[in-house]
Amino acid sequence: MAPLPAAAWKFPTKIFRSEVSNTNRQLRLQNRPKGLLAPGDLQLIESPVPEIKDGQVLACVKYLSSDPTMRVWMAADTYLPIVPIGEVMRAIGFAEIVESRHPDYKKGDRVTGFTGLQDYVIVDESAKPSFQKVPKIPFVSDSVFLGVLGINGITAFFGMEIAAPKKGETLVVSAAAGATGIIVGQIGKFHGCRVVGIAGSDDKCAWITKELGFDAAINYKHPDWKEKLAAATPKGIDIHFENVGGDIMQEVLNRMNLHGRVVLCGLISGYTKGDPGLASFGTVLVKRLRVQGFIILDYASRFMEAATQLGRKMFGKLKDRETIVERLEKAPDAINMLFTGGNTGKLIVKL
Amino acid sequence: MAPLPAAAWKFPTKIFRSEVSNTNRQLRLQNRPKGLLAPGDLQLIESPVPEIKDGQVLACVKYLSSDPTMRVWMAADTYLPIVPIGEVMRAIGFAEIVESRHPDYKKGDRVTGFTGLQDYVIVDESAKPSFQKVPKIPFVSDSVFLGVLGINGITAFFGMEIAAPKKGETLVVSAAAGATGIIVGQIGKFHGCRVVGIAGSDDKCAWITKELGFDAAINYKHPDWKEKLAAATPKGIDIHFENVGGDIMQEVLNRMNLHGRVVLCGLISGYTKGDPGLASFGTVLVKRLRVQGFIILDYASRFMEAATQLGRKMFGKLKDRETIVERLEKAPDAINMLFTGGNTGKLIVKL
Repeated sequence: MAPLPAAAWKFPTKIFRSEVSNTNRQLRLQNRPKGLLAPGDLQLIESPVPEIKDGQVLACVKYLSSDPTMRVWMAADTYLPIVPIGEVMRAIGFAEIVESRHPDYKKGDRVTGFTGLQDYVIVDESAKPSFQKVPKIPFVSDSVFLGVLGINGITAFFGMEIAAPKKGETLVVSAAAGATGIIVGQIGKFHGCRVVGIAGSDDKCAWITKELGFDAAINYKHPDWKEKLAAATPKGIDIHFENVGGDIMQEVLNRMNLHGRVVLCGLISGYTKGDPGLASFGTVLVKRLRVQGFIILDYASRFMEAATQLGRKMFGKLKDRETIVERLEKAPDAINMLFTGGNTGKLIVKL
Repeated sequence: MAPLPAAAWKFPTKIFRSEVSNTNRQLRLQNRPKGLLAPGDLQLIESPVPEIKDGQVLACVKYLSSDPTMRVWMAADTYLPIVPIGEVMRAIGFAEIVESRHPDYKKGDRVTGFTGLQDYVIVDESAKPSFQKVPKIPFVSDSVFLGVLGINGITAFFGMEIAAPKKGETLVVSAAAGATGIIVGQIGKFHGCRVVGIAGSDDKCAWITKELGFDAAINYKHPDWKEKLAAATPKGIDIHFENVGGDIMQEVLNRMNLHGRVVLCGLISGYTKGDPGLASFGTVLVKRLRVQGFIILDYASRFMEAATQLGRKMFGKLKDRETIVERLEKAPDAINMLFTGGNTGKLIVKL
C-alpha cells in the first residue's frame, strides 16, 4: 500500500498515546495578549510527567472547555488572579484519573475542574476543591460535563435564578448561540417566557429558533437589527441576560420595561478590545433596572444542586451543539474563535 | 417721610398679599433648556385666580422644593412625562387650602404635592392622589415637609431599605451635603455604618462631618480626592448611594467590595451636560455588584409609612439645613444652584 500523502498527517484527527505518556505537553502563557491571541502568546512546552506523591492524583485531560473568561484571566486580576507569565494557562477540563495515591480517587474516576491547558494534571488537597467527580452516563458524551451539565449549564441555571423569570415575560439573551446563551434561552422557555436571542449570524439565528425553540433571534450584524429587536419584543423586555456588553447591551436596556432585571454574566465585546462601558447609565435609573453582576464561582457550594436539577428536570430536553477543535496546540485558535464568532454552542478542545 | 429709594423695592424679601389675591403668578416652561436654565426658559405669566367648582380646592403655595429632577422633567419623557412647552413647570410644593368645595379638605388644611411653580394651585380628584395632608407640628417649620419629612427623607428612607445596611459596613453617598445625601448618611449612622460623603466644597465637608456625624467627607474638587477616598474607605465600600454619576461614580465603583450594593438614585452630573455613561461596566460584573435604579414615586403607597418612621424614630435626631431662596421669580436660579453647588442641605423657594 502506498504511504499516505504528507498532508494527511498534518492535521491528525486522533492522537494515539499510551495511557500514561512520559511527556506532558502544556500551553504556558508567555505574553499578555493584545486583542486576539497572537502566535507565541501561549507557548507549547514539553516536560516529563512528574511522579505523584502520597495524597496526589494524576489525571489525563480528555477535553478542555474554551470560555471567553480565559481571555480575562490572561489580562488582569479580576475575580481570579491573573495567570502569571510562564505558568500553564488556566482552563476548565474533563480528565480521567490514571494514577492515584489519594484515598478519595481511584484509577478510572472522571473529574472536571481547573485542569489547565495541558495533557496531565496533578490533583492534590490544594487543587481538590476545584475538582468535581462526574458519573459515566450511558449514551451521553463526556464533554457534556463541560457544557450543559458543566460550567455553562450551571451558569445559566444560577443566572436564571437571579433573573427569577415569570410566565409571559420577555427574556433577551445575547451571545445566544453560545454555550451559556442556549441554555439560558431554553430555561426561559421552561418558565414560559418569550425568548429572544441575539447572535452574530443567520445560521446561528436559524438554529436557536428552529431547533432550540427560541421565539425569535436577531442577527446583530444586520444593519436593521435594532428595528428587528423592537419588532421581536413588542411588550418590551423584562429580563436581559447579558454576555456581550457595549452597544448591544445599551440597545437592549433601551427596550427594557420598568423594574426589569439584568443578569450581567459576561461582557465579551470588551475582553479583546477594552471595556466599552455604557453610554447611558440614566437608562438604569429611569427604568429602575436591577443590574446584578454575576460570577459563577460564587455558587460553587451549590454546583451539585444545579447539576442535579439540570440533569433530572431538563436533561434530555435541553439541546446543545458542540464545536470540537482537536489537539491541544489548537486551543489558542479555539479561544480566538469565541471572539470572532467561529463557534456555535459549546466549544471544546479534544485532546 | 422720604420715599424709599427705588433699589429697596427691587428685591423685596417679603411679599404681602391678601389671603386670596386676584392674580396667580406662574412660571411656565417656554424653552427646553440647554445646560443650565437661561433667562426666559421659564417665563412668569400672570393670570386671574380661577373660580373653583364643586369638588375642587384652591391652595396657596407657601414653599416650593427645588429638586435636580426638575431639570429632567424639562428635557425628556422619563419616569414622568416631559413638561409640555407653555405649561406651568412641575414642582413639589407645600400649600395651604384657602378655599374648599371638596369634602376631604377644609380651609386651613396643609398639603404637599405637585403644586407646580405658581402661587395658587387647584386640587381636584385628578390631582388629589399626588397630594398629601400634613399635620401642624409645634415648633417645627412647615418646610420640613419638603425635606426631612418630605421627598428627600422618604427617598433616603426607601433607598436605604434597598441598600439594606449592616453594622460595620462602609457606606458612601455622593452629593452628600444635598437634601437627600444628608439623610442617607444619617440613616447610615443609625445602622452603625462607617459613612463617607462626597461633596463639592470644604465647607460642606466640614458640616457633614462635624455637625451631621459623617465619619469622613471628600471634596471631589481637590485634585487628590481619589486618594482621599481610598484613605477614607480602608475596608472598601459595601454600599454606594449614587446621586451624581460619571467619574465620581466610576471611582466609587472601583473601590467597592465584592457583592456591594449600588442604589442609583440620581445622576445629576448628566442632567445639564448629557448622560456621562459609565466608563467601565466590567467593574459591575467582576465585583458582582447589584445596581438598583430607584425612583421614589414607585413607593407612593408607602410614603406615610416612611414619614411615620422618620418622624417617630429619627425626627429630632436627624439634622438638616435649609437654603432658602425668596420669591417665585427666583425659582429658576434656585434650580441652577443645584447644579452649580450653591446650596447646602434642602433648597427651598419661599413664596
